[in-house]
Amino acid sequence: MRITLLITLFAISSIFSQTEDERQMKAIYDMALTEGKAYDWLNYLSNQIGGRLSGSVQAQQAVEYTQNQLDSLGLDRVWLQPVMVPKWVRGTPEFAYIETKPGLTTNVPICALGGSVATPDVGIKANVIEVNGIEDLEKLGSEKIKGKIVFYNRPMDPTEISTFSAYSGCVNQRYSGAAEAGKYGAIGIIVRSMNLRLDDYPHTGSMSYGDTPVQNRIPAAAISTKGADLLSTTLQLNPEINFYFKQNCKQFDDVESYNVIGEIKGSTYPNEIMVVGGHLDSWDLGDGSHDDGAGVVQSMDVLRLIKASGYQPQRTIRVVLFMNEENGLRGGNKYAEVAKSKNENHVFALESDAGGFTPRGFSFDCSDEDFAQVEGWKKLFEPYLIHMFIKGGSGADIGPLKDEGLVLAGLRPDSQRYFDHHHAENDTFEHVNKRELELGAATMTSLIYLVDKYGFGVQKKVKG
Amino acid sequence: MRITLLITLFAISSIFSQTEDERQMKAIYDMALTEGKAYDWLNYLSNQIGGRLSGSVQAQQAVEYTQNQLDSLGLDRVWLQPVMVPKWVRGTPEFAYIETKPGLTTNVPICALGGSVATPDVGIKANVIEVNGIEDLEKLGSEKIKGKIVFYNRPMDPTEISTFSAYSGCVNQRYSGAAEAGKYGAIGIIVRSMNLRLDDYPHTGSMSYGDTPVQNRIPAAAISTKGADLLSTTLQLNPEINFYFKQNCKQFDDVESYNVIGEIKGSTYPNEIMVVGGHLDSWDLGDGSHDDGAGVVQSMDVLRLIKASGYQPQRTIRVVLFMNEENGLRGGNKYAEVAKSKNENHVFALESDAGGFTPRGFSFDCSDEDFAQVEGWKKLFEPYLIHMFIKGGSGADIGPLKDEGLVLAGLRPDSQRYFDHHHAENDTFEHVNKRELELGAATMTSLIYLVDKYGFGVQKKVKG
Repeated sequence: MRITLLITLFAISSIFSQTEDERQMKAIYDMALTEGKAYDWLNYLSNQIGGRLSGSVQAQQAVEYTQNQLDSLGLDRVWLQPVMVPKWVRGTPEFAYIETKPGLTTNVPICALGGSVATPDVGIKANVIEVNGIEDLEKLGSEKIKGKIVFYNRPMDPTEISTFSAYSGCVNQRYSGAAEAGKYGAIGIIVRSMNLRLDDYPHTGSMSYGDTPVQNRIPAAAISTKGADLLSTTLQLNPEINFYFKQNCKQFDDVESYNVIGEIKGSTYPNEIMVVGGHLDSWDLGDGSHDDGAGVVQSMDVLRLIKASGYQPQRTIRVVLFMNEENGLRGGNKYAEVAKSKNENHVFALESDAGGFTPRGFSFDCSDEDFAQVEGWKKLFEPYLIHMFIKGGSGADIGPLKDEGLVLAGLRPDSQRYFDHHHAENDTFEHVNKRELELGAATMTSLIYLVDKYGFGVQKKVKG
Repeated sequence: MRITLLITLFAISSIFSQTEDERQMKAIYDMALTEGKAYDWLNYLSNQIGGRLSGSVQAQQAVEYTQNQLDSLGLDRVWLQPVMVPKWVRGTPEFAYIETKPGLTTNVPICALGGSVATPDVGIKANVIEVNGIEDLEKLGSEKIKGKIVFYNRPMDPTEISTFSAYSGCVNQRYSGAAEAGKYGAIGIIVRSMNLRLDDYPHTGSMSYGDTPVQNRIPAAAISTKGADLLSTTLQLNPEINFYFKQNCKQFDDVESYNVIGEIKGSTYPNEIMVVGGHLDSWDLGDGSHDDGAGVVQSMDVLRLIKASGYQPQRTIRVVLFMNEENGLRGGNKYAEVAKSKNENHVFALESDAGGFTPRGFSFDCSDEDFAQVEGWKKLFEPYLIHMFIKGGSGADIGPLKDEGLVLAGLRPDSQRYFDHHHAENDTFEHVNKRELELGAATMTSLIYLVDKYGFGVQKKVKG
């Protein structure tokens, strides 16, 4: 009943200002598509800087570049927020082969998982035991695993329409596979890349040894999907074959890095903060154009588009370019820690971290009342083919801000091609389409505009 | 009132069979995504055959290949429908340059428009007059146009969310530009490529001289978007520069070709025909993967998926692979002509000819009553993120079938990247994503299933 009343009240206020909202959103989309800056910024991040793994020279270059660009936008304030981040380095390229008989070998493409230990200098060579997931380990037991390389080969489920659901269904093999296999005496693990295509790119990503003591940690690598199919077929023909791999990666001490932050002060409620962001770090294999260069440049363009459209926000809009989402989430945690220590009032946070593809909508992590309000805006987005307003997750970096009353949201682009590129050498600039990227920026800007104008807080005050 | 009643009746029948429809559609999507054939067929069409311009050896190879593949599916009948098609040949590659002073030239990428005449052997060189569309010709008049090359430079409007709308807004420059400019004494035309990106690919496409006598026809070429920008800038600096181009294309006599047709006979209403199709011919510059290899292989997979799902259609489902959509529409016209001469009862026709990208929905050319019925199925498509059910055009090839009572539909994939590739050298296999293609095939199959099961005709009988 209360929800119904709120919806009704909102519907009335909507009708009165419909034309103004339509006009403002059209102006935002038109500007994004004709004079958007996101693509140029992404070109620089991707092609002049490249992969930006936390603690790398490139990550620092990205901090400086985006700070300079935000400075040039005439925001009210731009600053760096220091944060200590892990520094893991891949070292010389990895090398692997399947040995069907002594001297008869076939090379396969692998890459170390982020955070993995190196192999010994001479590499490791051992028999392989293929499993369809971590659950299989217990059934096999130490007897069948000890001294071997465990090969996790559960693929992403192609029948999931959302490829993120397919990813969720097998990423624990990558994240926890080494820690779990180590308990049964495995000496290394190889994980099928989280990729729905058959190709030659190994896909890296974060992994954790949990509480495994340092001396018991075993090296972990991803193998390309074609390599995984070859290995699996070879094992079916002869379970006694050997697999060899060598990797040279290393974990260094934490180093100082930064979240890059800029803001436009709100005219009426300066203490009510809306965050829009993506993560500035990326994996090292590609240039991180989709993950998450796209989210970074879209978020930057949100503030630029708001200013350029002449709209004067009532609330403070803050762009946050988070450091270290990929292998630590230190930036997201630090931002939330500082916000809480300063007792800042965050009312909304929006993250773009699902690729620079055609936007389809948003997912929201919020109350039913707030979601009902959001759904009231759906009609305004229809001309832009934005149709997906769902309850669900938002984004990793803004997650630590989560608090009762705060609305969290994530941009939801079309997901079909995302895992073709995710964490792999082919996450590169030429796979981002300019218009798709710009439509995402315009869609985010429109949501920020609507939240600023109607404010979730207003409803709460009405209720209060 | 009548519409409301129909909707209500349909809604009730929907509720009763919802679970079965949901199950059937899930089976269709699962099969398309795990054992779809569309991508393999496209691989062959694109990489073993390539561009399939009407009258070419490749077009004939495509006829034979698809006929063989349809034969292998165990359909009730597969046949070729003869049709005479135009044969236009590009000849040796085109060549063009901007001459800022005698001897100082910059090459620019061009291609002849389909159907254009050649230049003289030595090419043509002349001053250039830039216009923003055909409307400008009258203002300029013969005095300023005579003896010059007309340069049509109106770009696609980037603020149109549907890129097809942007295409509609300037394609008349390509289609009628030569005929119109010729009336004012122009000696050739250059058209900015119908492409929203800035790149180096010229995009060909059909053009017509209308009733221009043969001896008065002037050569017509497309220039890449980057080439167009360079030419425009150069003209601003010095309107007296020359443009040179040479092309060697030729129109031959019509040759015999074929529509490729296969069908599954309906169990209950074999005389009610539902057509699903795309066009087998393509332009010659790329391999025609998006335009319209994708539509061809999706349409073929519709019949395969229907059979593989175990569903026994009540009505006849016919796949038609139309010849010569690009430069004549002879196949579409022939199919309709034969259908009418045989007094065949077509109840539905669905075309896929907008690229192999993530499907978003369908557009329908039909009565309000039939559209209301279609909208009742919307909910069934939601799990597959198919959200766009609009009234509008369907497809060029099925257009000639149009008749009162016949429902025409077109698959509507995401359009953002389509004109990056359309009619250009980069319309190639690697730009088609397997999942996106398969989702399109499943979406089409699901619609065919629903039309077969509920039949627009049933409503008409109820009304009668």
